[in-house]
Amino acid sequence: MADPRFYQRQGPFKLSELAKLSGAELAPEADPDRVVQDVAALHAADSGDISFFDNRKFRARFQESAAGACVIAPRDGGDAPSCMHLLHTPNPYRSYGFIARAFYPTPAVVPHQSEFASIDAAAKVAADCAVEAGAVIGPGAEIGRRCHIGPNVTIGTGVVLGEDCRVLASASLSHCLVGDRVTIREGVRIGSEGFGFALDPAGHVTIPQLGRVIVGDDSDIGANSTIDRGAASDTVIGAGCRIDNLVQIGHNVVLGQRCVIAGQVGISGSTEFGDFVIVGGQSGIAGHLSIGAGVQIAGKSGVIKDIPAGDKYGGFPAVPVRDWHRQTLSMSRLAKGKGKSDG
Amino acid sequence: MADPRFYQRQGPFKLSELAKLSGAELAPEADPDRVVQDVAALHAADSGDISFFDNRKFRARFQESAAGACVIAPRDGGDAPSCMHLLHTPNPYRSYGFIARAFYPTPAVVPHQSEFASIDAAAKVAADCAVEAGAVIGPGAEIGRRCHIGPNVTIGTGVVLGEDCRVLASASLSHCLVGDRVTIREGVRIGSEGFGFALDPAGHVTIPQLGRVIVGDDSDIGANSTIDRGAASDTVIGAGCRIDNLVQIGHNVVLGQRCVIAGQVGISGSTEFGDFVIVGGQSGIAGHLSIGAGVQIAGKSGVIKDIPAGDKYGGFPAVPVRDWHRQTLSMSRLAKGKGKSDG
Amino acid sequence: MADPRFYQRQGPFKLSELAKLSGAELAPEADPDRVVQDVAALHAADSGDISFFDNRKFRARFQESAAGACVIAPRDGGDAPSCMHLLHTPNPYRSYGFIARAFYPTPAVVPHQSEFASIDAAAKVAADCAVEAGAVIGPGAEIGRRCHIGPNVTIGTGVVLGEDCRVLASASLSHCLVGDRVTIREGVRIGSEGFGFALDPAGHVTIPQLGRVIVGDDSDIGANSTIDRGAASDTVIGAGCRIDNLVQIGHNVVLGQRCVIAGQVGISGSTEFGDFVIVGGQSGIAGHLSIGAGVQIAGKSGVIKDIPAGDKYGGFPAVPVRDWHRQTLSMSRLAKGKGKSDG
Repeated sequence: MADPRFYQRQGPFKLSELAKLSGAELAPEADPDRVVQDVAALHAADSGDISFFDNRKFRARFQESAAGACVIAPRDGGDAPSCMHLLHTPNPYRSYGFIARAFYPTPAVVPHQSEFASIDAAAKVAADCAVEAGAVIGPGAEIGRRCHIGPNVTIGTGVVLGEDCRVLASASLSHCLVGDRVTIREGVRIGSEGFGFALDPAGHVTIPQLGRVIVGDDSDIGANSTIDRGAASDTVIGAGCRIDNLVQIGHNVVLGQRCVIAGQVGISGSTEFGDFVIVGGQSGIAGHLSIGAGVQIAGKSGVIKDIPAGDKYGGFPAVPVRDWHRQTLSMSRLAKGKGKSDG
Repeated sequence: MADPRFYQRQGPFKLSELAKLSGAELAPEADPDRVVQDVAALHAADSGDISFFDNRKFRARFQESAAGACVIAPRDGGDAPSCMHLLHTPNPYRSYGFIARAFYPTPAVVPHQSEFASIDAAAKVAADCAVEAGAVIGPGAEIGRRCHIGPNVTIGTGVVLGEDCRVLASASLSHCLVGDRVTIREGVRIGSEGFGFALDPAGHVTIPQLGRVIVGDDSDIGANSTIDRGAASDTVIGAGCRIDNLVQIGHNVVLGQRCVIAGQVGISGSTEFGDFVIVGGQSGIAGHLSIGAGVQIAGKSGVIKDIPAGDKYGGFPAVPVRDWHRQTLSMSRLAKGKGKSDG
Repeated sequence: MADPRFYQRQGPFKLSELAKLSGAELAPEADPDRVVQDVAALHAADSGDISFFDNRKFRARFQESAAGACVIAPRDGGDAPSCMHLLHTPNPYRSYGFIARAFYPTPAVVPHQSEFASIDAAAKVAADCAVEAGAVIGPGAEIGRRCHIGPNVTIGTGVVLGEDCRVLASASLSHCLVGDRVTIREGVRIGSEGFGFALDPAGHVTIPQLGRVIVGDDSDIGANSTIDRGAASDTVIGAGCRIDNLVQIGHNVVLGQRCVIAGQVGISGSTEFGDFVIVGGQSGIAGHLSIGAGVQIAGKSGVIKDIPAGDKYGGFPAVPVRDWHRQTLSMSRLAKGKGKSDG
């Protein structure tokens, strides 16, 4: 079970309750009244636990698991251990997410304001927010209901947060408007002045950055990531985006809804993404590009041209993944051929 | 116009005033007494605004713009809209920077010390500084006139800042001497102990790092970047350098003046740069190298050898850009040839 | 000598004392009673200083050095300047580390709790710890003896630190158990909720992250690095690991003992390393991989397959370094051939 130092477990739940809250269905042999105590990974679970299976690479773990219940796609459950009760769903990982959240809900915000927090008299903080020690909230800031402002967080002048937002330790926000249910993780920097100056060998000339960052509802920004504010227009993070740790997003970038940006990616200024674009870790996207909806970019790619909607790209300079795999194969053959002819 | 939550506009200004302060010249047909209310991008501007044009890729935006005035290179202004008053200069973006700064100057520092700031009795902080809530200033630190020490900033023991510096939220400085008019952005780490140890399978042995970081006048360090202090000698950031977000600079690195380092670049220990070196995003420079003055390195490059002054390099391992483009082209042809012969 | 603003020197020491504490041996001609005042680099040293030599690329610096003493491998000392007293050891840099630490020991922790620190009544902090201004320590946290909790640090609910740990400015810890003698540098984020969600075009579904981060004794985590907590099991950093700045370590990653991870490396979720793995800067390791003990990975590599123990890999996709060098060479030849035939 999860370490009680850090996690408070709820439950138990009947299997029928878990099916309902997760959008799964009870398999024909499953007992709806079976009581489930906890969630656990397949190899660590025992008869009181529910687990999930969705990666056939680890089939043996499923067959050997002692889990009392398991969320699984119907086609994968044929050889389940005899004591295991199954929940059927086409997307077991998704359903498992709802079940795990039932056992371990995000703790409700306990309204309070630490005496070690500095809240400007001209800031508006909803009465049911939690403001932790070391937090600094500037003049004109507006914080919606049930927000959690973590330790040592800085909320700059005029910043607006919607409802149910979480801003975790040491993050800082300036020049931004944030929607509802947004999570801003530890050490994130939103609204910093971007890399804007006129190159000049005699001394670069700063271009004032006069835009904002607009962060859509339900988005989630990973630890120590940085999002610069717009230069003239705004930098926009679409609703439901998931941004991992140590990501850099330049000024005037516009991300569509529900984009997924993995760790250490960099997106240069003024590039625009459609909805549901997925970018693998450590990739870089040059500035002033248009990346269409549904595009997928492999990890460690370098994108220097527009990509049409729905395409999959990889490599540097990035090309369609099929071409990229050919390049890799060709280079490998070439090196082996040379190696033979040299030796 | 810029969101008044975050920006205070000055002005209006006559066109002749803007010409003077930006080093531009009034075009023959321009009215020197034309009153300008604000700055705006070409597509968003109306008759009271001044804009700039310097990217021919967006020529249509210029021709369709309703901007009342525009900064432009003389050769580009031939087909300006009839109601547009032009300012001529060879570097429109640079002149626009001065104009935008006139409308939106960096707010003057309002001297105060927050009651939530911890300032050691043995620190010297000029009386006209602003020290925000959560700032911690250690013994022996010296802060020059008109500095702004932001919320939750840490200034370590003995650190020296010149005049007119800005240290933004949650940055931390130790073991460093900083010049005048330096901007250190949110979450920057200056003076951390570098990656110094003797490799030993039985347990690595730490090498004490006994140097400092010297930060030159007018330099600008981007959010969440890290600059390690020297091991024996110092790490040096030359005057006027511009360093973007999430950049890593190792111990004993020496940057010349006015270098430009884009986001997520890493520079390994003891490498030295001449003046005005420009490095594209996500590039890595190995340690103990010499990169000559005026060198330009393309984004996502990996540099493992010295580069002579004035050269342009790209790729990994980095080669002259002309060779790099040939490599890219060759690889692309090779993959296509293989693809055809396979299919 | 090191700047006294930042460093307090101890000593002097006799050469025989330095030999003993560093595991080196006095060369036959060396005077055991020779008094040494300080450490210095070869080119900066004078007769009172001790230096070290281990990089033959800089042989001239050794021959021209005015250092009064030098740590050196026996085979390299044949042409030492006549006034230089030698200490012999097979690993001069390692021995120099012990000597430099004798002159410049890490300052002892001076027990105190700043009035600007917020320590929860339900936290246990050993009486001989130092807790600096702006530090926030949550309920249930346990801090062992002689720990230094730096300015603006956040120690979350239930976090456990062993003895003699240092947590530097603005770092934040949550959901983690930390061993003894661990250094966590400025701005580090340990225990953040990892990148865990079920992809869903209609809105990604968060998977609760219910594990911890376990940090082994004597490990060292660089500035602004991020280590996510486990999803179900734990993320583990083995004893004696050295992690540089701006490194990203995903959920469930397990690092063996004494691994060395250079700057800006990213390690994706659930990958496991054996002991003493060394990874060069800006490399990326995909998720769910197994990297054997003693593996070395060149800088800027992209690893997408398991690597057997003891192998050296490089490139993207990473291959054995010998093959990688052949690929690089082939590509270079190919580009030159094309270049010739084109011109």
